Formats: sequence, structure tokens, C-alpha cells
Amino acid sequence: MKKFFSPSSICVIGASRNPEKIGYIIFENLVNYFEGKVFGVNPSAQEILGQKIYRSVLEIKEKIDVAVICIPADLVPQALEECGKKGILYAIIISAGFSESGRSGTEREKKLLEIAQKFGIRILGPNCLGLINNLKNLNASFAPSQLPPKRKVAIFSQSGAMGAAILDFACGENFGFSYFVSLGNKADISEIDLLEAWEKDSEIDLAVGYLEDIKDGQKFLEVAKKFSLKKPLILLKGGMSKAGNRAAASHTAAMAQDIEVFKTACFESGVVLAKNLSDMFELAVAFSENPIPQSKGLAIITNAGGPAVLAADACESEGVELPHPGQKTIQVIYQNTLAASIKNPIDLRGDARPSDYRITLEAVLKDKNFSGVLLIISPQRMTEVNKIAEEISKVKKKAKKPIYVNFLGGKMVAEARKICRENQIPSFTYPERGVRAFRFQAERNAVVDFLKKERDEFREPHPNFEKVNQLLKVAFLGPSYPLISKILSLYNVPMAEVVLAKNENQAALALKKIKPPVVMKVCSKDILHKTDVGGVILGIKNKREARLAFRKIIENVKRNCPEASVEGVIVMEMASEGLELILGAKKDAVFGPVLMFGFGGIFVELIKDFSLALPPFSQEKIRQMILKTKASKIIYGYRGKNYNPEVLEKTLLGLARLIVEHPQIKSIEVNPAILMDKNNQILGLDAKLEFEKDNQQKLC
Amino acid sequence: MKKFFSPSSICVIGASRNPEKIGYIIFENLVNYFEGKVFGVNPSAQEILGQKIYRSVLEIKEKIDVAVICIPADLVPQALEECGKKGILYAIIISAGFSESGRSGTEREKKLLEIAQKFGIRILGPNCLGLINNLKNLNASFAPSQLPPKRKVAIFSQSGAMGAAILDFACGENFGFSYFVSLGNKADISEIDLLEAWEKDSEIDLAVGYLEDIKDGQKFLEVAKKFSLKKPLILLKGGMSKAGNRAAASHTAAMAQDIEVFKTACFESGVVLAKNLSDMFELAVAFSENPIPQSKGLAIITNAGGPAVLAADACESEGVELPHPGQKTIQVIYQNTLAASIKNPIDLRGDARPSDYRITLEAVLKDKNFSGVLLIISPQRMTEVNKIAEEISKVKKKAKKPIYVNFLGGKMVAEARKICRENQIPSFTYPERGVRAFRFQAERNAVVDFLKKERDEFREPHPNFEKVNQLLKVAFLGPSYPLISKILSLYNVPMAEVVLAKNENQAALALKKIKPPVVMKVCSKDILHKTDVGGVILGIKNKREARLAFRKIIENVKRNCPEASVEGVIVMEMASEGLELILGAKKDAVFGPVLMFGFGGIFVELIKDFSLALPPFSQEKIRQMILKTKASKIIYGYRGKNYNPEVLEKTLLGLARLIVEHPQIKSIEVNPAILMDKNNQILGLDAKLEFEKDNQQKLC
Repeated sequence: MKKFFSPSSICVIGASRNPEKIGYIIFENLVNYFEGKVFGVNPSAQEILGQKIYRSVLEIKEKIDVAVICIPADLVPQALEECGKKGILYAIIISAGFSESGRSGTEREKKLLEIAQKFGIRILGPNCLGLINNLKNLNASFAPSQLPPKRKVAIFSQSGAMGAAILDFACGENFGFSYFVSLGNKADISEIDLLEAWEKDSEIDLAVGYLEDIKDGQKFLEVAKKFSLKKPLILLKGGMSKAGNRAAASHTAAMAQDIEVFKTACFESGVVLAKNLSDMFELAVAFSENPIPQSKGLAIITNAGGPAVLAADACESEGVELPHPGQKTIQVIYQNTLAASIKNPIDLRGDARPSDYRITLEAVLKDKNFSGVLLIISPQRMTEVNKIAEEISKVKKKAKKPIYVNFLGGKMVAEARKICRENQIPSFTYPERGVRAFRFQAERNAVVDFLKKERDEFREPHPNFEKVNQLLKVAFLGPSYPLISKILSLYNVPMAEVVLAKNENQAALALKKIKPPVVMKVCSKDILHKTDVGGVILGIKNKREARLAFRKIIENVKRNCPEASVEGVIVMEMASEGLELILGAKKDAVFGPVLMFGFGGIFVELIKDFSLALPPFSQEKIRQMILKTKASKIIYGYRGKNYNPEVLEKTLLGLARLIVEHPQIKSIEVNPAILMDKNNQILGLDAKLEFEKDNQQKLC
Repeated sequence: MKKFFSPSSICVIGASRNPEKIGYIIFENLVNYFEGKVFGVNPSAQEILGQKIYRSVLEIKEKIDVAVICIPADLVPQALEECGKKGILYAIIISAGFSESGRSGTEREKKLLEIAQKFGIRILGPNCLGLINNLKNLNASFAPSQLPPKRKVAIFSQSGAMGAAILDFACGENFGFSYFVSLGNKADISEIDLLEAWEKDSEIDLAVGYLEDIKDGQKFLEVAKKFSLKKPLILLKGGMSKAGNRAAASHTAAMAQDIEVFKTACFESGVVLAKNLSDMFELAVAFSENPIPQSKGLAIITNAGGPAVLAADACESEGVELPHPGQKTIQVIYQNTLAASIKNPIDLRGDARPSDYRITLEAVLKDKNFSGVLLIISPQRMTEVNKIAEEISKVKKKAKKPIYVNFLGGKMVAEARKICRENQIPSFTYPERGVRAFRFQAERNAVVDFLKKERDEFREPHPNFEKVNQLLKVAFLGPSYPLISKILSLYNVPMAEVVLAKNENQAALALKKIKPPVVMKVCSKDILHKTDVGGVILGIKNKREARLAFRKIIENVKRNCPEASVEGVIVMEMASEGLELILGAKKDAVFGPVLMFGFGGIFVELIKDFSLALPPFSQEKIRQMILKTKASKIIYGYRGKNYNPEVLEKTLLGLARLIVEHPQIKSIEVNPAILMDKNNQILGLDAKLEFEKDNQQKLC
């Protein structure tokens, strides 16, 4: 998409004489600043801004790389058709009145796509703000013409208004960028295309974007991961709550996405997920102007106790560490400054001089205990805030570690803050925000490590693939617990053995196959709560007890549930004591296969202690997933109790493989699965299987 | 303390000729602006700023209400002595060099207090910034002389630097106040004195403070509660984490306080606890300029989808509701504006006019579905941001509901933000911050209700008070489970019955007293893990089994633990199945009695699902405390299971009463206590009692 971002020539279809109109603003922005050739198209004008105007693109003889279209919606299809004939490969459609505005608009958008496909045109929008390439002075948007500095940052936004706000913020804060893309309705070009292009673009070191929906989740993951391996991607997503989703639905018809799945998807693809607008803006500045720290150790340098205490509080809640300075650092600071306390925070006292800040900052940057520095400057009587800002600026230019600055106050520190912004030092109104930015930057290393090590353990189909494929065909017609349990077992998910006994004899014989003690349960589609009708007997130890239990169960059910049709009694292996878990796998509508692990039982529904993982799956990745839960503290050793986590990891791996290799499965859940104390084994006691075509059944 | 805040005359001891010195700045601030009389004291000067200077306060003939002392620390005691002789009742000691600076400083501070006590002087500081009464143009501080508008807001800060930052912030943001007090070392005057005075002061509608420690927690609670019943108190506390506490310790020697206890204390006394500096500043503005909303229903008015979606996301995470507009509101907006979507958020479209905002805002303010409004203005092409700010300002003047404004962006909205600040409209850089401010304001109602209804159920001592007092004396010499259990039972905490059997016969006889099945456990101080040495046998149903169990336990212990001294075997009542809980009560070093409730067992240590309560105790309050835990969802009905919460509430009330009425108890814990399924009863199975004088023992 090189010609899209850096065209040699561009035309504006709908160039206008009226300075109030978008068609004028865009044309003016291009004519006045763009380094390439600009053509205007308007059937009822001859000249605008001293430029010749054409009746149609077909009249223009020169080659045109990009067309900007800003005419009424109903005229757009014809204009696009002409672009096609002219051989233009990229169209930026500013006009509104498409899928965002009801059924006829959606039809119109469909038509655009048909034309585009016919001619091989790529479309940005419709219903968008346009495109800016700051490096080429290309402002094909109706944003103000004064742009901030050129930096290696790319910005994209699905919402036009949010895009306008981001641009205005960038101008106000002197936050530079290279490309700005307003995605609008995303009829064709989406965040996926942008990330693919920017991953290879040496003019980009960082991408920042606002999205409301993601259509092809699996493709997005793949592209975002590839991008993240090279450069950070900061994302803010609207509609991350039920209320937000409702609000979004009336806005861009964004799809309701499972929020936890989305968070996991971002985490696993290395995306820096901003929680809100303040995060997005502040992280954009931090990632753009600071290098990435190598660890979580932050040094705090301050001239006041109070705000440093608050910064330390923030460190704890953000998981940032406050190591002690090394011996040499202490010595340098002690000998050259008025510092009162050289721990961490390092307190330079209320009368700290600009040189004290400089010397301390330089010493700390050399100290391998620290990966970043937060400077707090409280405007006290002797504090030369502007000079301190200048000293910090000098050090920042050579610094190889990130620096965060908090000038605390209002009027007295306004100028110092400006100095910081001009010198590309991330400056924060409150100390806790600087700590938060450091935390996000510090997490980047771990993420890249994780992505580099990632591997797919399912290179070849499971040896039992064919067998299971056949069984699934049978199960589709009528899944039963024995069948599902067989399928799971074939993929290394150990399930309790069962025998369906139709009479006393069969019940007794079952104990030859299944090692007692066993549990016996009535088998009937009509009975939901088996225990309540006396349909379950536990701890059966021998044949005599099995016969007795069979009779008792049938009797109970006949008495309590006379109308139920009974298929027999299930004889089932019993688990010994252990942890009750849920193991699940499902296909997410957007992101595809998702693996789930969590605590089972009544507690769990209250605690909601679970975690998710997305492909590619490996035992290591599954371990990371388990470790995200509180349950993992028990599983990986707690109070002397020993479980076998490897057995659990392998079981989950089997479940993951089952859903990845068999697209006909929509979801499969083993609940409860017991991770047993005694024999270090896991045993699933019940399972549910759902097929893609809404053929849902729960058995046993 | 009327004369302290509004003195008629004031003297500066240490008035200086050197414009760089604090003694000059303060003297100048007073001479130039203060409405009352000002005197300067300095033995080596005759005239400063055209004012006669005295060698000592004793030379001044007029009456003096307040002395400001800013001379070297070692000279302060003598100056204070002279203040006493002169009959001055309030001294503001700016000088540093006291308890904040090591042992000799602490000694010096002690001496100050002795002098103060002798003469009845109240001291502010030492080591503080001073005092400002903006209403009287009294600036007895070395803060800049240009002060923001006069408003009914009082500010206090324990940290001087934080105080300076707050003042500078107030000046920058045009945030008005009446009093500003820098507390410094709090040798005498503390936040308690301020709140007591301000509660009755009609010039104060709101107090905002920064604290690092609270010495007399119980008194603070009492005063804060009384204050909160009338006006909001916003508090930010430094050192709310382990890291922050360590940082604070090197700063003001602040006491390490149990963070959860502190949070509960604030909650119960109606304090608005800010989480960080951004909270403190933004909430100060919101509470100062907005009325209190009557419910949690917020309306969002916007001209852009994206930021409104993000605001809705924030509503969900802050627990703010987004009700639908009423029929009439919809009609008014539909007929008079260009609104695209009249749900909530109300979307006025990108080309919304200032009048659209005004009309919609007015309609929404009249709608009883809403208690507050958030306005989002994204600077789009047609958006007249400044005019919108002016329209909002007009409506705000008459509004009886809170209004929060978010002009989104940078340069283009800077002027509009200024208009908002000048017209006392809380304006936020990001929409999520406005939502958060609304949430805190909306919680204020519930808090006042809660405080009004609060009552103490322990008006007279428990009928068993004397009996328990006697038993505690015995227990102090050697607490045993039977004794502790007796004490608890006498205060309505049901404990499992026990008999200590010294031989087989006694074990068998015990079953006459305790209804089987029973549990039998070895009784020995030397054995920690009774189960591991075969010292516990469960489910003993009759005398024969009791004899057998006695023999078996003694045998096991002799074999596995030959050196242990064994007192006998305890025969104990068994609980039926139920929930395992922890019930505790302790004396906090700062806040006094604290009641604790939580889930028991291994899960709990992982989940940390517990809640606390402070006096006064009532069954209603204890219910609120239980309801704060996740455990309460099970206790108050879950999945058809029924427990008896009242039994639990009454048991906790008994435990609370025990610690409140018996000061010799430091802590008492019943763990586990079983809330049983079947008989709707609760039963404590073990208990631990600790006396105030470190006489700790655990029995059984």
C-alpha cells in the first residue's frame, strides 16, 4: 500500500469553491502543502484556488494514485466507477450515508464494494475523516492544516470524532506522528491492512489506534502479533462493557464481543490495551518518547515527601518495584547533592537545586538496579522549576532508559511542563500516572519474550484424529456420555469410565470392568436433578451392593417420578478427593478457538476465577494460562499439598487440540474434573458437547 | 478556635529585611493584604516595609491573637515562652528542626509542648507552611500572595510540599477556597481540631485534606463522622501500601496502619477517600461546584459516538447507571434539536449546535430519571466549542443537579475549558474522569443515610458482663479452650461443647454430656499438628467407640511423639455440614475495636474475601458488613441453599460486644465456625484469645 500512503498524485472528487465545504478544505489542504500533484474534479467549476478543475477524473490525462471522494452518497458509486476506468487504485471516501445510516445505506456500501472489486480499487471509509501523511505534507482530510512534528508514530481511529480529538490533542501537546488514518465504516481497508503495511514501514516505530469492533479476529491476531514482535501497538477499544456495547450498537453497529476473550486476544498478541482515553494518550506519549525498560525497577527522585509517598503507593498497586540504589549511586549523590535520604524514593529535600536533580538523574540512569526514573518536582519556595526542566532535558537527550516527569501543581509549573513537552520528555500531571506509564512500558519486554518463544504443538493431526472424526459423526446424531467420554479420552482427557446397566446383573457385572467403589446414577432424559429423586447412590463396593443399589434406584425413581422414561442405571468410576475444576473449549464468533480453565463448584460462580487462552497452544502457554488464576496457587503447591500440574496441563492441551482439529465442535466442557490428591491423576466426571449447527445436548 | 482562623492582630517573630527569607515573605504577605493589625519582631531590626519592629513580643503593648514564628529552631522555645507571658493563645511555628529531624529535634518539640501547656497556647506546626484565611485576606504563609477566589472550601495538608502544590493547583485552575492550613509535625493542632472547628463554621461547605498518619483514630472517627453528617470531607492518605508506608516512614515517621482498617474507618465515618492525587483534585472541584445527586442515574449528552461509548464503559466499571430518558424529554429533544439517537447516551450528531446542547441539557435536568449529566463535546468541523461552553454556563447557574463537562482534545478546546472553569463547571480532560466524579458524588447520599440511621446496641453492659470479667481473670493466668469457649458462649457465640477426658472412663462418660457423634483429639501443648500424629478421631457414636478411640489416640501419640506431655483427650461436639467461616475481633492500635468476618478454609487465604466493621455495632451494621463479602451471596440465599443469616449476625454482634466491653482482650478469633445447613445453627470449633499484655496462647 505504498502508493496509498505516499501517492505521487491525488485528485479530489467534489473539490468545492465554498470555503465552508469539506470539498474546499481538503482541496486547499492538498494544494497548499502536498509535495505531489493535485487535481480537482467538479462538473460545475472551472477553477478553484488557481487550479484548473476537471469535469470528471476521466478528463485528467496524468496518472493518479489516490482519489478523495467527498460528494453526496448517491453520486459516489458512479464516481468510483470512473476512478476504476481511469485506473486509480485507491479511493478515500469521505462521504457519509452508507452502512452507518440504515438499510439503503448498507445496500449502497455493498454496491461500492462490487465496483471496487471489479476494478481492483482499495477503499478507505466511507464515512471517514480521511488520511494524513505528515512526512509528505499530505493532508487528505478536513482536519486543521497545522500539524504537529513529524515522528515515527502511526495513528488510526474507527470513530471520526475520536480521530479529530486525537489530532487536536496531538497539536496541543506537541505530540508528533507520521500517518493518521480515519477508518470510518471499514468497508474495505481495516486495521488489518494498516498493521500489515506499517509492520514493514521503517517510518513507523509505534502504532496507536481506537477501535469499536474487529471483524476477522483470527486474522487480526495474526497481524497484530507480527506487528507487536517488532514495534508496540497501543489499542483502545470502545464497548468493553455491556453498557458500552449498547451505546456502541447505536453508533457503528459494532459486534458484541466477549470482553474476556478480547482481553486475552490482546494480551496474547502483545497489544498494549489501554483501559481508557487517559491511558491511550499518556501511553502514546510514553512509548513514542521513551525507550523500553529492561525490568520493573523504577527509581523515584523527589524534592518532597508527600507526592513520593503517593508514587510509592501507586508502584505497589501497579506492580512496579522500587529497588535500592547501588553503593556507587549512593556515594555520587551523597557527595554531590543536598539529598536527605538516598533510598528509594531518593529525597533531594525542599531546597533541591537544578544541579542536584541532574546529578542524581545521571547517577540513577547508570545504576543497573533501575530500568527507569520518575522525577517529582513540587514547586516549593526555592525550587527553580524551569531550570530543573532544562537540566532534565539535557540528560534525556542521551538517556537510554525511560524518564517520566511530574511537575506537581498548576500555574507555577506550567512553563516547566511546556519545556518537557518540547524536549520530548513524557510529563504527567500526577505522579501515579507516570508510574502507570512505566508499568505498561516495562511489561513490553515480557510480552516480546513470550511472543518469540511461542510455538504450536499441533503440527500434525493427533494419531486418533480419524477415530474421533468418525465418533463425532455418530455423536452428532445423538451424543451420549459414553460417546463423549470416549472422544475425550482419545485426545488424552481422562474421563470416568461408565457402563450402562439395564438390569441388576449388568450392574453387578459392571464392577468387573470398573474398579470399585463406584457411583450409580439413574439414566433418564426426563430427570434433571437425579439426587433429588433418590436416583444417585455413592460408594458401592461390591456386586451385592450394586444389585441392591440398582433395585433401590429404580424403586425410588418409580415412586418419585413415575412418568419418567428410564433407560437404565449408569455405573461410574468414582474420583477420590481433590480439587473440583472446569475445563472448557469453545469457538468464539470473532476469535475462533478459546480454551478455558477455572475452579469448579459453587465457590467459582461467586469468585469467577478463570482464565482463557487462544491458539497456538503449547504446554508452556497452558501453564501460563493456569498461573493467571488464583486456583494455580493451590495446584502448584500450597500448604504442603501436592498436585500434579503437568497432568492438568496435558489434559487441557488435549482439549485444546480437540477443538482446533475438529471444526464441527462448537464447544466442549468437562465439568467437574477432579484433580486428585492421592494418585496425582485427573478425572472428568461429566461432559457437555455442542456442535456448530446448534445440535446441543447434555448427557448423564 | 475562632481567633485562630480570624485573628484581629498578628505578629511575626522573625520578620526579616532580606526578601529571600521566609520571615520577609510572610511579613510582607500580612502587611500588604491582612485586614487586621500586624506587628514585626526582630531584635536586630528597627523598621521593615515601613513598619516599626519590636525586639520582643513583650515590648508590644496591644493585644495579639496569633504569633507566627519563623526563627532558627533552637531559639523557638524562648520565643514561645515570651508569647505565653504576653498572653498570646495561638502560635504558628514555621521553623523546621523538630521531631522530623531526629532525636534532638524530638526533644525540642517536647519542650515546646511543655511551654504551650504551661501557658495554654495552641500550636500549629512546627515545620509547616502556615495558615491562610482567604476571607480576611490573611496569608500567614510563605505561599504566593495572589490567591484564587473566596469559596466555602477548607484545605489542610500534613505535607508542606503537597500543600504548596495544592495551592498552586488552586491558583492555576481558579479553584477557590476559604481556609488553607499546613499541619506540619502536628505537635498540637491536628486534623481533629480543624474538623471540629469547621463543622460549625458557616464559611465552610467542604473540607479537603492530605494526611500521612492519624494518631488518635477513635477521636478522628468521631469528629469525621460528625463533620460528614453535615458536609463532605475529601481525604487523600499517603502510605496506603507497604511500599508507600516505607517511603512515608523516612519522611514524617508516620505510623504503619492497617490499610483495610483505615479504609473501613473512612467508609463508616462518611469520608470520601480519594485513591490518588487526580481523584483528590477532581473530586474537590466536583464537590465544591456541584450539588449532590439524589441517585446513581447519569445522562450522557454527546456529539460523537466514540467518546460516549467509552463513557458508558466507564459507567459500568464505576457502578453508575444509564437510565433511559422519560417520554417528555425525548419529545422535547426530538422536536427542538438535530439529535440522532435519544437514548442514553443522547447523540446530538457531529453538527450539533450550541442551542442543541442547551435545549437537551435543560430537558435532561428536568427529567426525574436522571440525577446528573455528563456533556461530551468533541471538536468537529462544525462544532462551536466556545459557544457551547457559554450555553452550558448559563444553564449551570440555575441547575440543581450536578453537571460534568468533557471537552475532548487539546488546542481547539483550551478556551472552552477555561470558560467552564471560570463559570464553576467541573471540567475534565477525559470522559471517564467525569463519570468517576459523579460516582463519588452519588455515593454521598447513601453515606449520609447510613450515618443518620446508625445506632449503638450496647447501651448497657451484657447481663453476663461480670461473669465473663471473672473468667477473663482466670483465663489470663492460663487460657484453655473450655474456658475461652465458656466466655464466648456467655456472649452468645455458640461454641462446640467439650470435655477433657483423662482416661477411658471419662471419655465414655463424656457422651452423656455431649450428644454423639463426637470428635476426639489429643490435648497436648507439645503437639501442633494433631492429625499428623494420629491424634484425632472423628465420628465416634457410642461409649464403646469412645473407649477404643481414647486408647488408640494415646497409643498413636506415644508411638509418633514419645516426648510430648499429654494432658488427656478432648471429647468435642461435631458440627454437621455447612459453611466454614472465620469470626474475629481485635483492637487496632489506631482505631480501637475492629470486627472481622470472612470465609474460612484454604480457599479464603487465596481469595481474601473478608470485611471489617468498627463501632458503634448494631445488627444492621453487621449485616452491611457481611453483605460486602462474596460469601454473603451464599449465606443470603444461593442456588436454593438456605442458611440462617440472622444467627450469624447475632453471633458476630456477641463477639463485637465482647471486645468492646472487655478492654483487656487484644484479639479473639473463632476459626473455624460452621454455619450449618441442616439445623440453621452456627457452631465455633476452635478459638484463640490474646490479652492486651502479650499473653498469647492458643489452646486445643
